[in-house]
Amino acid sequence: MKSEELLYTTMLRDELPAVRATMLEVQQRLPDPVAPALAAIINGGGKQLRPALALLSARMFDADVENAVPVAAAVEMLHTATLIHDDLIDNALMRRGKQTLNAQWSAAATVLAGDVAFAWAAELATRSQCLRLIKHFSETLAIICSGELNQMFTTRAQLPTEADYYRRIFSKTASLFALAAESGPLLMQRDEADVQRLRMFGKLVGEAFQIVDDVLDFMGDEVTLGKPVGGDLRQGIITLPVLYYFRRHPDDVRLHAVLARAEHVRGHNNYMRNESTIQALIADLRQSDAAEWAMQQAETHAAEASALLDIFPDTTYRQAMQEITAFAVQRQY
Amino acid sequence: MKSEELLYTTMLRDELPAVRATMLEVQQRLPDPVAPALAAIINGGGKQLRPALALLSARMFDADVENAVPVAAAVEMLHTATLIHDDLIDNALMRRGKQTLNAQWSAAATVLAGDVAFAWAAELATRSQCLRLIKHFSETLAIICSGELNQMFTTRAQLPTEADYYRRIFSKTASLFALAAESGPLLMQRDEADVQRLRMFGKLVGEAFQIVDDVLDFMGDEVTLGKPVGGDLRQGIITLPVLYYFRRHPDDVRLHAVLARAEHVRGHNNYMRNESTIQALIADLRQSDAAEWAMQQAETHAAEASALLDIFPDTTYRQAMQEITAFAVQRQY
Repeated sequence: MKSEELLYTTMLRDELPAVRATMLEVQQRLPDPVAPALAAIINGGGKQLRPALALLSARMFDADVENAVPVAAAVEMLHTATLIHDDLIDNALMRRGKQTLNAQWSAAATVLAGDVAFAWAAELATRSQCLRLIKHFSETLAIICSGELNQMFTTRAQLPTEADYYRRIFSKTASLFALAAESGPLLMQRDEADVQRLRMFGKLVGEAFQIVDDVLDFMGDEVTLGKPVGGDLRQGIITLPVLYYFRRHPDDVRLHAVLARAEHVRGHNNYMRNESTIQALIADLRQSDAAEWAMQQAETHAAEASALLDIFPDTTYRQAMQEITAFAVQRQY
Repeated sequence: MKSEELLYTTMLRDELPAVRATMLEVQQRLPDPVAPALAAIINGGGKQLRPALALLSARMFDADVENAVPVAAAVEMLHTATLIHDDLIDNALMRRGKQTLNAQWSAAATVLAGDVAFAWAAELATRSQCLRLIKHFSETLAIICSGELNQMFTTRAQLPTEADYYRRIFSKTASLFALAAESGPLLMQRDEADVQRLRMFGKLVGEAFQIVDDVLDFMGDEVTLGKPVGGDLRQGIITLPVLYYFRRHPDDVRLHAVLARAEHVRGHNNYMRNESTIQALIADLRQSDAAEWAMQQAETHAAEASALLDIFPDTTYRQAMQEITAFAVQRQY
């Protein structure tokens, strides 16, 4: 199932380009050499799942498209802003097969370009004229940034728990999916029950999406990923499949090499030097059932998400939302 | 006139500590080692002119203190967030006589700590429950970040104009003073005329304040400044007094050394290596009438600001606001 064949891309044929155009307005706030570089990132934005969820949620609850487009753009712009600072922090040179901003500009310019993107996201969120949504937006911004900072300063001597993992990916990914999904009922001033249901839907989709992403980190290839394989391991990040693998191999001493890596990476922007250890670990992970097990978890989350929407009328918007839950776990590797 | 003797510090005896306490809540979002470092920056916050303006503006327009305190905290937190990223960008090691965050932590941690501060500022702004204020808040954030990025990528072969200078300090300083000053009428849903008047008041106070700061950059001493003397010159930034000096000395070739410096600094985080040139230029600036001329400009702005408030009832709140305009240009050097 390719994203081009999905219901949401057809249904949102006008809205998704409008979201992108709204995001691209940020160029007016950027100096000449930085503007096209950021525009390239926005235009290379891939699957647009977050804005699609925001737009479909708005449609499901009969919200005005006029208000939904800036909200969808705010969500995706916030995502873009965090990617800009993340790539700087991780010293990543490639993302989605393209050079990162920090690969092209100084750290100083990259920090500021990210800040301008944050500011633009905030401006777009205020366009919704919806106080509750703006409040959730700024809370999500806080959750994302704090989560990353906490991750950076967390010292681990042992394998993290699944709860640790889910806490981390909520900050990193699921919180923004939750915001996108709840934006429809928020815009329409629906009661807390609907907001919470859509929020939980988004959180589960985000978790499923992130787990698949974490599987792809070692199962994918560099060309498809658009970035080096094993990036998480090199940064000392224990993802769900890796957590599972080490739980099944408690005597594998490479866990300590990976965990020690996190200690070393913190603030040093360095990758694991022992490339042969990483390569061997990737090979063992690929051979194991870790990917399969993690994919099952992702599928469970996606199914739970989909079921949450069953109480709503069976419209094409609901179908498209449910289709996205399936798509989130069916990305190829 | 010391800040301890000023009307506003007495009048806001309860509110200013409440603002600081509200800012300090950000610690809950920060990991252990970063939290106290940011708390030290907040506690060392000096004159608190921005939150004082916000609180007095609220009082002048009979706004609820409950709403005014988070707004004042949002304004000062936004200021703090920009300082954190600025110090990283400028590679500054000292601020207000204390180590900067980037002097203590990695660039990565500093970027994220600044982001958390931005997020906290945005959350505090939303507490006002005032859409118009939140909109102005996010626009101000955009103005500040874009201004800095534009400054970084501006190439100059010749002396900037006064208009260039005022554009730059609006982004850097006056826009936030304007936001603080207009927050009272915004909170009280006053008409655009009052908002604009208070906004212009804040802009003029901010300009006066920044001009004095720019004079102190070469007239002050390192102990009082809490940072090295001549920081602007070393970064290739032409402030108002320096602009005046070079206009009076069109053949002084050191202008090109300073301007070339801006070119070199951009993204390189380097200071001017030719220390003797800088020292000689500082000595000549001190000998000249540049400081005196610039101070006159600052005093004119402060007087204009003060006059703008004359149409309002002569309350102690108005008096305190007008006193701040005088204080902004009477800082010692």
